[in-house]
Amino acid sequence: MKEIKIFSPASIANLSCGFDILGLCLNDIGDEIIVRKTKEKGIKILKVTGQKLTLDVNRNVAGVSALALLRETNVDCGFEIEIHKGIKPGSGIGSSAASSAGSVFAINELIGKPYSNKELIKFAMEGEKIASGSAHADNVTAVLLGGFTFVRDGLSFDVFKLNNPIELAFTILHPQIELKTSESRELIPKNVSLEKMITQSANLGAFISGLYTEDYDLISRSIKDVVIEPLRSILIPEFETLKEISLSNNALGFGISGSGPSVFALSKGLINAKKIGDLLKNKYKKTGIPFDIHTSNINEKGIKIITTK
Amino acid sequence: MKEIKIFSPASIANLSCGFDILGLCLNDIGDEIIVRKTKEKGIKILKVTGQKLTLDVNRNVAGVSALALLRETNVDCGFEIEIHKGIKPGSGIGSSAASSAGSVFAINELIGKPYSNKELIKFAMEGEKIASGSAHADNVTAVLLGGFTFVRDGLSFDVFKLNNPIELAFTILHPQIELKTSESRELIPKNVSLEKMITQSANLGAFISGLYTEDYDLISRSIKDVVIEPLRSILIPEFETLKEISLSNNALGFGISGSGPSVFALSKGLINAKKIGDLLKNKYKKTGIPFDIHTSNINEKGIKIITTK
Repeated sequence: MKEIKIFSPASIANLSCGFDILGLCLNDIGDEIIVRKTKEKGIKILKVTGQKLTLDVNRNVAGVSALALLRETNVDCGFEIEIHKGIKPGSGIGSSAASSAGSVFAINELIGKPYSNKELIKFAMEGEKIASGSAHADNVTAVLLGGFTFVRDGLSFDVFKLNNPIELAFTILHPQIELKTSESRELIPKNVSLEKMITQSANLGAFISGLYTEDYDLISRSIKDVVIEPLRSILIPEFETLKEISLSNNALGFGISGSGPSVFALSKGLINAKKIGDLLKNKYKKTGIPFDIHTSNINEKGIKIITTK
Repeated sequence: MKEIKIFSPASIANLSCGFDILGLCLNDIGDEIIVRKTKEKGIKILKVTGQKLTLDVNRNVAGVSALALLRETNVDCGFEIEIHKGIKPGSGIGSSAASSAGSVFAINELIGKPYSNKELIKFAMEGEKIASGSAHADNVTAVLLGGFTFVRDGLSFDVFKLNNPIELAFTILHPQIELKTSESRELIPKNVSLEKMITQSANLGAFISGLYTEDYDLISRSIKDVVIEPLRSILIPEFETLKEISLSNNALGFGISGSGPSVFALSKGLINAKKIGDLLKNKYKKTGIPFDIHTSNINEKGIKIITTK
């Protein structure tokens, strides 16, 4: 294999009750990445389309993660990368994770898969560090493992897949306002009352249980955030209105995707998710803020290979 | 049915990572309660053996929960209760929960089961309120539902059973020192750092996942407490030594049972639990503090009927 083209998907981190812990891999929305073996050693980023991003391998997240992999791996060739961004940077649906996980996934395939997808997480996180200032494994884990994922401890890469109730579907609205992860992080509290900690962790535990027992009512009762959302949601225009529309139209839950500004509604069935998408679209048009709407079911597989040569 | 004799088991609350959330129902250790229908209406506690406890129905937890049930239920008879305490009050393994849940379970059987076991929780919690000053549903839920139980929200009785990996077994050491729940509660922090909240809730979520996937390694990695145990364990003589002995002898985890002073070791297999029991016994003898040791596997059923007449 000399060349591989992959689809590296968007993802939702946090999912209301699982700050820095939960991740979910989406379908249809993502980056396409082509990687080719080259005689010359090292990494080159040939082009980035779809978004204006640097070609500097030491500053582009796909380059940074690829270099991290090469530092630990004996290969007698180099790689050139083309990135077609389908995800807007700063949208809150894992743009940097898709690129940093995508490049190392592609290289791993080209060199005969010495690493499992789980083992690739540590390289992908090097890219994430560049993007957000601190390394969080939630998005890259979702992209590399697929489905709902759990980060027990990001530092020791103690991460795993959860069960995926197949009827769950997501509506994502991305208001195109600038909201940097680092800025959004400044809003989070340093301390939490014990009472809120108990409420939040009870919801997380109940959500996990709901995923395993495929209890959609329990999932709905527990996908809530009493710690971060009340503080961060004020940065997102019309957050409460969108939430109200979603929850009064059969959404199981509604929250901030990652550190925002994207928001998500969780529904049972793609038809419900699309209906909520239409309602949110009609409402958001009136704000004058440019936005994107996506609907997606669960991507259980994660990154997919499109073609190989 | 005029008379029923039941076994109402001990339970472990909190289980390290699930403060006020997790519960576990034990086998073999518990109270025996006999309840008889009487012509005279109301509740009478005829006798309590095994421990010195009040016969006053308004102050004995079994009376308080029974009265709560009768207030909501039309019955044309009364009930007399005999309690044979097998659990020492103040031990931290759900003494009050066994009695308060036991009396309402027995009465419910005698009147033709108008309530599910889950519906009995709210009555049992009235007894718990008397015992600890505030109502926590973790122990009564474990006693009434059996197995590992989860309290998402005690106020709305949003509680459920988790999966029970059958090989799990517990060693409980009860140092007979006085340690009231209300006093032990004073030691818990009002606020928790966000970092600790994330660690603690990641462990809770991972533990729940481990129960469903029966992943004993994951259960072991996640049954940890970075919030409460560091503060409360100082009240329990030799806590760190007991923990070290347990963990270096194949225990999956070790922690405080409820608000203490009992401690528990979690093992894979009753043989391991008994071996740890012997080691802890030999060590604790040297302290001069009187103590009890119990070993138990998971009681999946909860309260059991012994005889009926």
